[in-house]
Amino acid sequence: MRGDGDAPLQSFAESARPEQGPPRLAALRAEMKREGLDGTIVPRADMYQGEYVAPRDDRLAWLTGFTGSAGLCVVLADRAGVFIDGRYRLQVRGQVAEDFTPVDWPATQPWDWIAEALPDGGRVGLDPWLTTVEGLARLEKGAPGVTFVRGDNLVDRIWEDQPEAPLGPVSAQSEALAGRAHADKIEALAKDLGTADATVITQPDSIAWLLNIRGSDIPRNPVPHATAILHAGGRVTLFIAADKIAELGDHLGERVTVAPPDSFADALATLEGPVRIDPATCPVAVADILRAAGAAIEEAQDPCLLPKAKKTEAEIAGARAAHARDAAAMVRFLAWLDSQPPGSLTEIDVVRRLEAERRATGALLDISFDTISGSGPHGAIVHYRVTEATNARVEDGQLLLVDSGGQYRDGTTDITRTMPVGSVGAAERADFTRVLRGMIAVSRLRWPRGLAGRDLEAVARVPLWEAGRDYGHGTGHGVGAYLSVHEGPQRLSRSGTVALEPGMILSNEPGFYREGAYGIRIENLVVVQPAPEIPGATVSEMLTFETLTYVPIDRRLIVAEMLTRAERDWLDAYHATCHARLAPELDAETRAWLDTACAPL
Amino acid sequence: MRGDGDAPLQSFAESARPEQGPPRLAALRAEMKREGLDGTIVPRADMYQGEYVAPRDDRLAWLTGFTGSAGLCVVLADRAGVFIDGRYRLQVRGQVAEDFTPVDWPATQPWDWIAEALPDGGRVGLDPWLTTVEGLARLEKGAPGVTFVRGDNLVDRIWEDQPEAPLGPVSAQSEALAGRAHADKIEALAKDLGTADATVITQPDSIAWLLNIRGSDIPRNPVPHATAILHAGGRVTLFIAADKIAELGDHLGERVTVAPPDSFADALATLEGPVRIDPATCPVAVADILRAAGAAIEEAQDPCLLPKAKKTEAEIAGARAAHARDAAAMVRFLAWLDSQPPGSLTEIDVVRRLEAERRATGALLDISFDTISGSGPHGAIVHYRVTEATNARVEDGQLLLVDSGGQYRDGTTDITRTMPVGSVGAAERADFTRVLRGMIAVSRLRWPRGLAGRDLEAVARVPLWEAGRDYGHGTGHGVGAYLSVHEGPQRLSRSGTVALEPGMILSNEPGFYREGAYGIRIENLVVVQPAPEIPGATVSEMLTFETLTYVPIDRRLIVAEMLTRAERDWLDAYHATCHARLAPELDAETRAWLDTACAPL
Repeated sequence: MRGDGDAPLQSFAESARPEQGPPRLAALRAEMKREGLDGTIVPRADMYQGEYVAPRDDRLAWLTGFTGSAGLCVVLADRAGVFIDGRYRLQVRGQVAEDFTPVDWPATQPWDWIAEALPDGGRVGLDPWLTTVEGLARLEKGAPGVTFVRGDNLVDRIWEDQPEAPLGPVSAQSEALAGRAHADKIEALAKDLGTADATVITQPDSIAWLLNIRGSDIPRNPVPHATAILHAGGRVTLFIAADKIAELGDHLGERVTVAPPDSFADALATLEGPVRIDPATCPVAVADILRAAGAAIEEAQDPCLLPKAKKTEAEIAGARAAHARDAAAMVRFLAWLDSQPPGSLTEIDVVRRLEAERRATGALLDISFDTISGSGPHGAIVHYRVTEATNARVEDGQLLLVDSGGQYRDGTTDITRTMPVGSVGAAERADFTRVLRGMIAVSRLRWPRGLAGRDLEAVARVPLWEAGRDYGHGTGHGVGAYLSVHEGPQRLSRSGTVALEPGMILSNEPGFYREGAYGIRIENLVVVQPAPEIPGATVSEMLTFETLTYVPIDRRLIVAEMLTRAERDWLDAYHATCHARLAPELDAETRAWLDTACAPL
Repeated sequence: MRGDGDAPLQSFAESARPEQGPPRLAALRAEMKREGLDGTIVPRADMYQGEYVAPRDDRLAWLTGFTGSAGLCVVLADRAGVFIDGRYRLQVRGQVAEDFTPVDWPATQPWDWIAEALPDGGRVGLDPWLTTVEGLARLEKGAPGVTFVRGDNLVDRIWEDQPEAPLGPVSAQSEALAGRAHADKIEALAKDLGTADATVITQPDSIAWLLNIRGSDIPRNPVPHATAILHAGGRVTLFIAADKIAELGDHLGERVTVAPPDSFADALATLEGPVRIDPATCPVAVADILRAAGAAIEEAQDPCLLPKAKKTEAEIAGARAAHARDAAAMVRFLAWLDSQPPGSLTEIDVVRRLEAERRATGALLDISFDTISGSGPHGAIVHYRVTEATNARVEDGQLLLVDSGGQYRDGTTDITRTMPVGSVGAAERADFTRVLRGMIAVSRLRWPRGLAGRDLEAVARVPLWEAGRDYGHGTGHGVGAYLSVHEGPQRLSRSGTVALEPGMILSNEPGFYREGAYGIRIENLVVVQPAPEIPGATVSEMLTFETLTYVPIDRRLIVAEMLTRAERDWLDAYHATCHARLAPELDAETRAWLDTACAPL
């Protein structure tokens, strides 16, 4: 999955083959019957509960044809519901056969749907490795008349050519980039275990952070498929295929013992407890094994989450370097885009060129997610992913929304810019300016330490609210340090209840989407920093955002009179900084483009 | 407590007599010893958990001397902690003898303090009528080694001249003002009881709302001391002294049965259950009686809270009328204030004149709380209440902060204005303008239905945050309709997690306080309304605030260049509306003052 040489990373194939669904569904129902089950649950998730799964774990797509990054299928004898969220309501229709019924999720929850479909006493099977402790608890609470039966994975039983588990090589993340030795991280977390004897870690990015390693088992996220047990004594057992760590040398050191993945269950059974698990991500199977072994279970958040979110100085320095590199690639791409006649490009052309510019840096290890390149009405589909089938020409008068990012050894980037193609209308420009005002409000924010994303997010939406507009996604998600482009617990949204702390990297990405017409999003990454002191201040400790992304925001879409003086000042200063940082890196032609793009309003 | 005739409502006496504390404390300890207790808890709260208590229930002040509106005393054999919050840290020092130790609350919680002071097995007595179900649960969880023993109230045992319970007359709130018959409210709530057989209501303002009655047992809040049981059949038993309702005639109607207060416990014991109680406000004694009688308990929020918060059209119309009347009184007061030579008035003079203007309306039934009149440094004490002992002259160059309100039959008002006395400095004017910007941001807000106060409050603080400033209180509290000036669950603050709904009345009161120097607060009341439609809007349902308060905001304190165009436009429009509403009511001299006060910036 690495961006080696010139091999393109993003594919545009339409992988859905609706006609394969019905025979597979019939085979699955035969297995259900054999097991005495009235239903079975096929989640998109693998045992690691991440956003991306290996081909082996793509059971939902294999069964139903639906390729979205979240969802599940509940198969009963007489119906099969495919639960998909708002992003995928259109996509699912073209991907699944009519034997499957799309269900509007989370408006309808699986437990409610099951409780309504099955009589009391119904039995529904599930794979305890793919279901979290919290997930099962919700099912059992929501459908109290139904018995949820742990058992073998029935899809695996009927999937004859199921791929093998990936064996992507693991590499070390140097202490210079991580900013902290993994021995030190292990020691600190072990000291914080309280009364617990061990904590089970099943999140690959937590393990990657804890051990200063990176993996290559799945696309887009440089994490290894592995599990780990952190012992109170300050030692870690890492369960991972030996092949994967062949090139790792003695990086792991004496605190870490490596064991084969299939010894994980046995190792759990030897723990005396109390053992900590994170119910939000820990498989039911882990809790079952611990309980059967008589170990007391303590529920607590994965202890890696918060320290991983608070980047070290070295990681922040790495992020700045990665963003500078990525910004230069973005600016080359934008200059090229402007030089093309309106109507001459397709959405896929745009993705290919941008990826090529990133690969040309020589430092790109992967893209951090499939680039969203949406022209006109496609821009209004928030998670649009262009395929050969949907590929549209970018027409004169349209807006083009491009949301993309790169995985570099020193950092993960994520940036959205929206550009005019030819001349666009006044409505688009006014809406763009509203989105920009929200984005500037977040950029300029300074707040007393202790507040969470939920306490701050309104400032991004007020300019849109004033005009009766809004957007249906959060304003910002956490971003990893050469890790997942989506990480928690930091969030700039209504679900962000964890205090923002120095070092946390987040996106700042308000948007506006007019269905069937156009989409607008402007996204920078920001890192939380202590705010500079102000004379006469009365709040002892304030925080602010340092902007990491330095790529000009399209001036042709800005209605200058809609901005306040302070907003104009911010934008002009931002563009001056973009220019100062990028100009030295660029050829004369691109620099000329940059001069214009960064001119004061 | 009514504002009959010319009798002043607010008293400036310093009621604390620290020297009475030690002998009373000794007597209480003797009772503790007799009961085999290591400690006892004396709360400020009465069984109704409201903000004001009758003289009979003012046990905390009687024992300790401390007269604040919130707090508690934990008496042990060797120490007595008086738990007070930030508002009262200065006040408590002058009010209690040195036998009492002020404790910083909630930084230190009573359970932690008790757990640290007492060995395992310690026994602490409490009155189960004065302790809520939630309150006891927190004590027991926080100090698991201590036994909390329900028993007689030990203060009542030693308080020889304890006043009798009040017998304030109850009056009907007409259906024309309430907008809804109480029979209809009872029926609607009874239908909503679900599986419960009855719900116990112990909040006087809930009972007042439910039965369209108002009481006069305590100052400032026109509520009756009473309890009630709402039965699933759509009937209510009201436990209240017969004397109080002598003048009520047949208002209560056939759905309501009146019973003596001392039959409440027996009536609880006959309930079969399940019975709903609100653990946040229900006395432990009620839950104990229900449990002893074998009735299952369901915990749920007081069912009156949400419908009471969402005012009817009639209540909103009443609020507008009450605010217009109150605004005219405020403007007469402000015009008088401006006509006095700087340095000629004291804080008490200010309170007296303002109260006189309100009484002169002929409609004032009470003030809605003791007026806060703070000049210079006193303005920085958020809940400052002037007494003969603290009374300061309002000096030239100072800011004067006046926070006040009236109880009228058609509505409850609450308004803060900050005025310059003579000529004030540039720092004060800049800070005033920052506070004003936050207050305007709330006034102009329009948001998608479903959001809570916590999701919106940041907009009020951003202009202060930008300058390193903030304020240590919420931006807004709920306000009743001729009921308590502080009511929930609506709140414009970090603890406001209930969605704001049309009809909810809140305050909008950002502030800034420079300790030892000056305080600034600007407060209007607002009511949530559906927002007018906007062409091109994409959000189907948006809400906004209608401002109820129409009193000019002091233009002499505004730095016009610090406002955006939109903020200036709002202020000029606000002043134009103030002028249009009030001018016809005023004499020529006051009208001339108003012309100046409402001139465009």
